[in-house]
Amino acid sequence: MNPPYDSGKLDRLMDEAGVDLLLTNTQHNARYLTGGYFYHFHERFDAMGLGRYMALVGIPKGDPGRAFLVGERREIAQSQDQGLWIPELITAERQPAAAAQAAGEAIKARGLERGVIAVEMDFLPASSMDVLSKALPGARFTEARGITESLRAVKTPEELEIFRRITQDDAEIIGEVFTSAAPGATTRDLARGIEDKMTARGLHFLWVFTCAGNKMLRAPSGKVWEPGEVCHLDAGGSYEGYLTDVCRMGVRGEPSKLADELFQACLATQNKVREEIRAGAVCGDLYESGFRHLADTGHGEYGEFIIHGVGLVSHELPRFGKGFENKLEERMIVSIETDIRHPEVGYVKIEDTVAVTADGCEGLGDLGRDAWYIA
Amino acid sequence: MNPPYDSGKLDRLMDEAGVDLLLTNTQHNARYLTGGYFYHFHERFDAMGLGRYMALVGIPKGDPGRAFLVGERREIAQSQDQGLWIPELITAERQPAAAAQAAGEAIKARGLERGVIAVEMDFLPASSMDVLSKALPGARFTEARGITESLRAVKTPEELEIFRRITQDDAEIIGEVFTSAAPGATTRDLARGIEDKMTARGLHFLWVFTCAGNKMLRAPSGKVWEPGEVCHLDAGGSYEGYLTDVCRMGVRGEPSKLADELFQACLATQNKVREEIRAGAVCGDLYESGFRHLADTGHGEYGEFIIHGVGLVSHELPRFGKGFENKLEERMIVSIETDIRHPEVGYVKIEDTVAVTADGCEGLGDLGRDAWYIA
Repeated sequence: MNPPYDSGKLDRLMDEAGVDLLLTNTQHNARYLTGGYFYHFHERFDAMGLGRYMALVGIPKGDPGRAFLVGERREIAQSQDQGLWIPELITAERQPAAAAQAAGEAIKARGLERGVIAVEMDFLPASSMDVLSKALPGARFTEARGITESLRAVKTPEELEIFRRITQDDAEIIGEVFTSAAPGATTRDLARGIEDKMTARGLHFLWVFTCAGNKMLRAPSGKVWEPGEVCHLDAGGSYEGYLTDVCRMGVRGEPSKLADELFQACLATQNKVREEIRAGAVCGDLYESGFRHLADTGHGEYGEFIIHGVGLVSHELPRFGKGFENKLEERMIVSIETDIRHPEVGYVKIEDTVAVTADGCEGLGDLGRDAWYIA
Repeated sequence: MNPPYDSGKLDRLMDEAGVDLLLTNTQHNARYLTGGYFYHFHERFDAMGLGRYMALVGIPKGDPGRAFLVGERREIAQSQDQGLWIPELITAERQPAAAAQAAGEAIKARGLERGVIAVEMDFLPASSMDVLSKALPGARFTEARGITESLRAVKTPEELEIFRRITQDDAEIIGEVFTSAAPGATTRDLARGIEDKMTARGLHFLWVFTCAGNKMLRAPSGKVWEPGEVCHLDAGGSYEGYLTDVCRMGVRGEPSKLADELFQACLATQNKVREEIRAGAVCGDLYESGFRHLADTGHGEYGEFIIHGVGLVSHELPRFGKGFENKLEERMIVSIETDIRHPEVGYVKIEDTVAVTADGCEGLGDLGRDAWYIA
């Protein structure tokens, strides 16, 4: 079977990095490299008995036909049912040392025991690294992140369709929760509402930041959303590992004049940056532009501008910062956030997700971004 | 503030293991050591930007007043709102190397740079281990698991109350899903039903093993639950990190004579083992007893008996195996499973959870264990 990702691009990335074999152990990279396959039992937890479950995916440069997945025996039937493309599923005990031992043997069997192996140093456990180093004393280990995040950076049309749908879901759900919030509802109640509605739509709820009033506590809590208070719902979930991340504003009653000024400042900043997004735009320019537009509103003092890529990892490529020279490409997914933490009004924020196009950007889930939800 | 766990016991365990400081990085141990506090944003995902979030909890032996938590700045308000007992919250970038550097400095500040540091080798990333080793060249690093799982093994009355409630919820939900399964429902539909109902009750859905008919595919799939087929639902979820794990049987129509014989064999095995559970019972004896009772039913050929502890980790202490001499203690939580994989009938299984008492055990969530659910 053919790999579901761009195999030529992976080979080039590995070649540029001088890497002979890619060995990942995170769920996000396993999902990407398998084309969505992951052992269902361990999608949401990994600690088990004397160790933990890890899916180790190994791909030799230029030779995906010799790729392997170290998993465990109970997933064999699922891998067959889902038509896993990886030709060898190696089963091991659910212990990082055992999984690493199996991976080491698979690497030797491919003649790469003296090669350069790229691993995820921030995720591969110390016990696995120790076993791998001893099993492959002639190998050199290097960081895999640059390779994997470059591989994932430009989304396929199929991935883009997932982002369209889940971001729209997220925006609709936030609107429903704001407008149905009962008097006396706490921020924890609002968060529960988001979780219930995400689950009903087949999303996996991940988080809500929410803050009612001006105390700046953004964790769901027993705080009641009181009349007159502004409130934001910044909610994230996932579908087959892909993330959605949207923020909208609500108010109980009517926003004060100042609150609405802050809201309009966020919206203007967002809109101006969105006008500048297109394939070829320089990430450092967009970053500085966001802060400049925010300052131009006259409400920069308490404000912050954040812009980041989204995918299977939050804040993945493209990256933005002062002086960054990297450029946007078509079908990159970008989150744009303007936050104003005003000591009197509270936390005012809009977060949008867009897909980069040749001559601009497509707003994903734009519902409700340009007005207050009134509860 | 006082630690929420048995501080005297932790000191004894660290003393026996020759450990000067416990440094954990898993969510389950962070929750246990903080008494339930965990940064809400990262309860369900950790990968972020150039690294990941980790909560590193450090506790010096005999000196919980100098405990520390390495987290990040956005959780300060939540830690104050929830009254985190740990006196020092150290904020770091969400990168395992940065978090480890901060932990290394905190360990030096406590004069333990030449001490024995217990870490979770199967969870601490290689990059963190590397930084810690360099920051503390005079320290010795050892495995923390023995200490943390012994500390957690006997549950408090408050923890027991959580297990009572969530196991009962799990059993009720499984019954509701079986009896409301529409004609033509797939095992994926059944799994979605479990997830929806767990979410509605405030549980975090984790997994369903389910198998309709005799093909032994236990992953949720497009397989339709056909008339005459047996089906099991082995469903797990969590509440504040505590796990529930229950399996019940259903059939479309009536079970065949053979299917019912297998079911009764599972039930008899479970019942006999439950009669032998009490504080002081030897874990190796219970393990062998389960297989013996199963064999006595005449249906041992395709059967398996499994018994394991449950808590914040699946298959935690107490552990069971041939010849194991460890003994049960009051308020340990034990899962008991009898599986028969019959080539004609399919997968027949009952899984119960019990709490060990002085003279027996208390069944948790026993609803529906002794009869088929008819769909």
